[in-house]
Amino acid sequence: MGSIENLTQNYPMNPLEPEEFRRQGHLMIDFLADYYGKVENYPVRSQVSPGYLGEILPESAPYNPESLETILQDVQTKIIPGITHWQSPNFFAYFPCNVSTAGILGEMLSTGFNVVGFSWIASPAATELEIIVTDWFGKMLQLPKSFLFSGGGGGVLQGTTCEAILCTLVAARDKNLRQHGMDNIGKLVVYCSDQTHAAMQKAAKIAGINPKNFRAIETRKSSNFQLCPKRLESAILYDVQNGLIPLYLCATVGTTSSTAVDPLTSLTEVAKKYEVWVHVDAAFAGSACICPEFRQYLDGVENADSFSLNAHKWFLTTLDCCCLWVKDPSALIKSLSTNPEYLRNNASETNKVVDYKDWQIMLSRRFRALKLWFVLRSYGVGQLREFIRGHVGMAKYFEGLVVMDKRFEVVVPRLFSMVCFRIKPSAIIGKNDENEINRKLLESVNESGRIYVSHTVLGGVYVIRFAIGATLTDINRVSEAWKVVQDHAGALIVDAQLASCEANKF
Amino acid sequence: MGSIENLTQNYPMNPLEPEEFRRQGHLMIDFLADYYGKVENYPVRSQVSPGYLGEILPESAPYNPESLETILQDVQTKIIPGITHWQSPNFFAYFPCNVSTAGILGEMLSTGFNVVGFSWIASPAATELEIIVTDWFGKMLQLPKSFLFSGGGGGVLQGTTCEAILCTLVAARDKNLRQHGMDNIGKLVVYCSDQTHAAMQKAAKIAGINPKNFRAIETRKSSNFQLCPKRLESAILYDVQNGLIPLYLCATVGTTSSTAVDPLTSLTEVAKKYEVWVHVDAAFAGSACICPEFRQYLDGVENADSFSLNAHKWFLTTLDCCCLWVKDPSALIKSLSTNPEYLRNNASETNKVVDYKDWQIMLSRRFRALKLWFVLRSYGVGQLREFIRGHVGMAKYFEGLVVMDKRFEVVVPRLFSMVCFRIKPSAIIGKNDENEINRKLLESVNESGRIYVSHTVLGGVYVIRFAIGATLTDINRVSEAWKVVQDHAGALIVDAQLASCEANKF
Repeated sequence: MGSIENLTQNYPMNPLEPEEFRRQGHLMIDFLADYYGKVENYPVRSQVSPGYLGEILPESAPYNPESLETILQDVQTKIIPGITHWQSPNFFAYFPCNVSTAGILGEMLSTGFNVVGFSWIASPAATELEIIVTDWFGKMLQLPKSFLFSGGGGGVLQGTTCEAILCTLVAARDKNLRQHGMDNIGKLVVYCSDQTHAAMQKAAKIAGINPKNFRAIETRKSSNFQLCPKRLESAILYDVQNGLIPLYLCATVGTTSSTAVDPLTSLTEVAKKYEVWVHVDAAFAGSACICPEFRQYLDGVENADSFSLNAHKWFLTTLDCCCLWVKDPSALIKSLSTNPEYLRNNASETNKVVDYKDWQIMLSRRFRALKLWFVLRSYGVGQLREFIRGHVGMAKYFEGLVVMDKRFEVVVPRLFSMVCFRIKPSAIIGKNDENEINRKLLESVNESGRIYVSHTVLGGVYVIRFAIGATLTDINRVSEAWKVVQDHAGALIVDAQLASCEANKF
Repeated sequence: MGSIENLTQNYPMNPLEPEEFRRQGHLMIDFLADYYGKVENYPVRSQVSPGYLGEILPESAPYNPESLETILQDVQTKIIPGITHWQSPNFFAYFPCNVSTAGILGEMLSTGFNVVGFSWIASPAATELEIIVTDWFGKMLQLPKSFLFSGGGGGVLQGTTCEAILCTLVAARDKNLRQHGMDNIGKLVVYCSDQTHAAMQKAAKIAGINPKNFRAIETRKSSNFQLCPKRLESAILYDVQNGLIPLYLCATVGTTSSTAVDPLTSLTEVAKKYEVWVHVDAAFAGSACICPEFRQYLDGVENADSFSLNAHKWFLTTLDCCCLWVKDPSALIKSLSTNPEYLRNNASETNKVVDYKDWQIMLSRRFRALKLWFVLRSYGVGQLREFIRGHVGMAKYFEGLVVMDKRFEVVVPRLFSMVCFRIKPSAIIGKNDENEINRKLLESVNESGRIYVSHTVLGGVYVIRFAIGATLTDINRVSEAWKVVQDHAGALIVDAQLASCEANKF
């Protein structure tokens, strides 16, 4: 037994001394406020080379403490050059992952409490606020009541869509195997389109679905890369005829490549005929559906089994925050619940509480509801709609700029705040490959550090994706971005013309 | 095309205006600093009833914005009563999830940058710092070089142990199925002990392992609830004889129920004979192994395939931060990589960079390395060791207090900072069930709100777990906690004596 005096004297530090926390916390807030003030000055895409950081940091952790001031100095000089600035107003790549003061403050509070809300009892507010905000959000989206707790379903905040898809897939799988027997796992088939996010294929792999039974149904430019219900039905029929068991369909509202919207009403009709679980992935575009004018894109969701969107993309809530709603929580719970002795408690045994550990892969879980609650309250539904509309308006404006320049074309209709465009073949002189010149344009623009855009390939065509949604982006940045694109495209086209002339000489 | 004037005028708000962020950020820091100053005054385990929050919050999100001041008022009056205070110095339940100023600041910075580090190019610093800190941490733990990037292996920061187990299990499964064919998924067998965390069983279920092929091998009090290598080998042999394929073993350093340490050296010897993937889960106790005197508990890890610990438990790093090291990253990558066109980039194609999306379930990932880097630098290896030793010293002291009181017993030897104890049968009068009275003691202590402890059942015996590790806990709080336990136990024993006398009357 240790002596109490020794233990008191030798205790070396209090890493949570409130006044020192206060002092350092204020320093960090100032650091971040200054960062937002100057984020635009940094190259948007980091310009470092692979391995840069290993060359300038020590090989081992320090033995002695270092001051916050020293560490922040290193953040400024060593980390920030290696950051690709997702919060820059000139970030137009991938999909946005936008932040807000409210989102950050909610996350700070969650971090500060640092409760682990696996069971209701482990922090009742964490569970109950999650129930409340997912119901609030569901109502904002006009989800059918069957997705809300108040209607027998319910929402949960997971990390990412990958988790949401994996959890619902496993729920669907087990529901099916309970009926057909565990030995039939090799017969289960998953459906999606060739535009569905790669998360679907990965989830199927993780869940033990035979890779041969993964159907990424081909889409076409003529139908704007939507999943065709007839093709889905043909695929299902073919599988059924071959003794396979149709299991799960992932439909998308706002695909990653082009924000295409799959026709939910007719897809769910087909799926229901064959008792296929339908998940609707609206990771990015779902946020827009809080505006009445975009709600149509969710029509048909009432026939789906589960629905998810990422509040951390286009909803001012910091990474990570994937909202998943299901109609039948018991399907999730049957697959994902564990009940070890060390977690048993009276509240859970009454069955009057939700234990979110049984709705997700992970046992430990952060108090994510706080940040979404802060966002919803700090901005309110009215301003959140205007915020979404602001980005859509900027995208419309950008689309107009593209259309006005005869060297470019918009490749697919713009539905939300992303424009897919390219230098069009007719603007390209000589033998230059149209995909190659657009690839060069992307790289040239990104290397400049002035804006960051990303790409995709749609029906064999290399396309530049211009996704608007960073919080600090405004219409002037969008105008400037277009000038950057035009300048780089101009230089490339002139180069190509010169090269073509050279080639013709010989 | 929208008019530029309209778009400029109508834009309703800037939710990331730097000066407003600064003002509100300072308010939040003060709120949290004040919280730590008074956290001890709140009942440790929340005393609310199920549904309390739904009764006091509105049914829908507000249409109009609300001020931070209003929201913080609600946090104080409506959320805090529903919080179970994991940061209270009187929190001794489950395992700790301790925070520090450095950990919180690192998390704030990560939240503030809000980069999505799925690929190297998406924020090179996020990937490179993760490589560096996992190598640093691996060296602190004296992991064999084969687990470090510098030795051909590597580390990754995931959310929780559940993820780490699922990812390594899927890697092992697919490696096996590549050899034996996908149709053999139903023959794969997973091994662990009846003390292994429930995460193992859940991961096996998610990965499509037949529940019949999940072996939780029985442990015994006589060997302190360690997994016995002979029993493991018998189980494996039996399965092999029955045409099954041994796949994966999860060994534990510091089990959840009693911090038992499985004998890694002999277990890995058995496993290697049958080509079984060995994962070592040191979620809680791994942190202690940065102290030379505890490193022995990892002996044998050099023969494992993967190893994980949660820096968010006993290492001052906020939730979530599970450090996973693997010897063969390509096994993970073969199972978990995706390469959709919209994520392709030159850096990834050179194969000179790590794309962590291929090391985990999720595509999107936070910049978790910052918080661990802040912790390692702010406290340094020397103080971190003293911090761990401080908790172990307090647990030793508590153990001594239990031993001195003849009404109690320590149920299993204490190895780290957790003590498993109970009122012993000889102190119980009459017909009172020994498990029942300890259950009552737990509930009575927790209801008081003065401390929070949790329980387990070990070999049929109901045990109170007293886990030390909250940052603000000190030796005085431990002494006080013991007095609380003694007082409540005394009252229960007296009650039991009275009841026993009453019963004898009739």
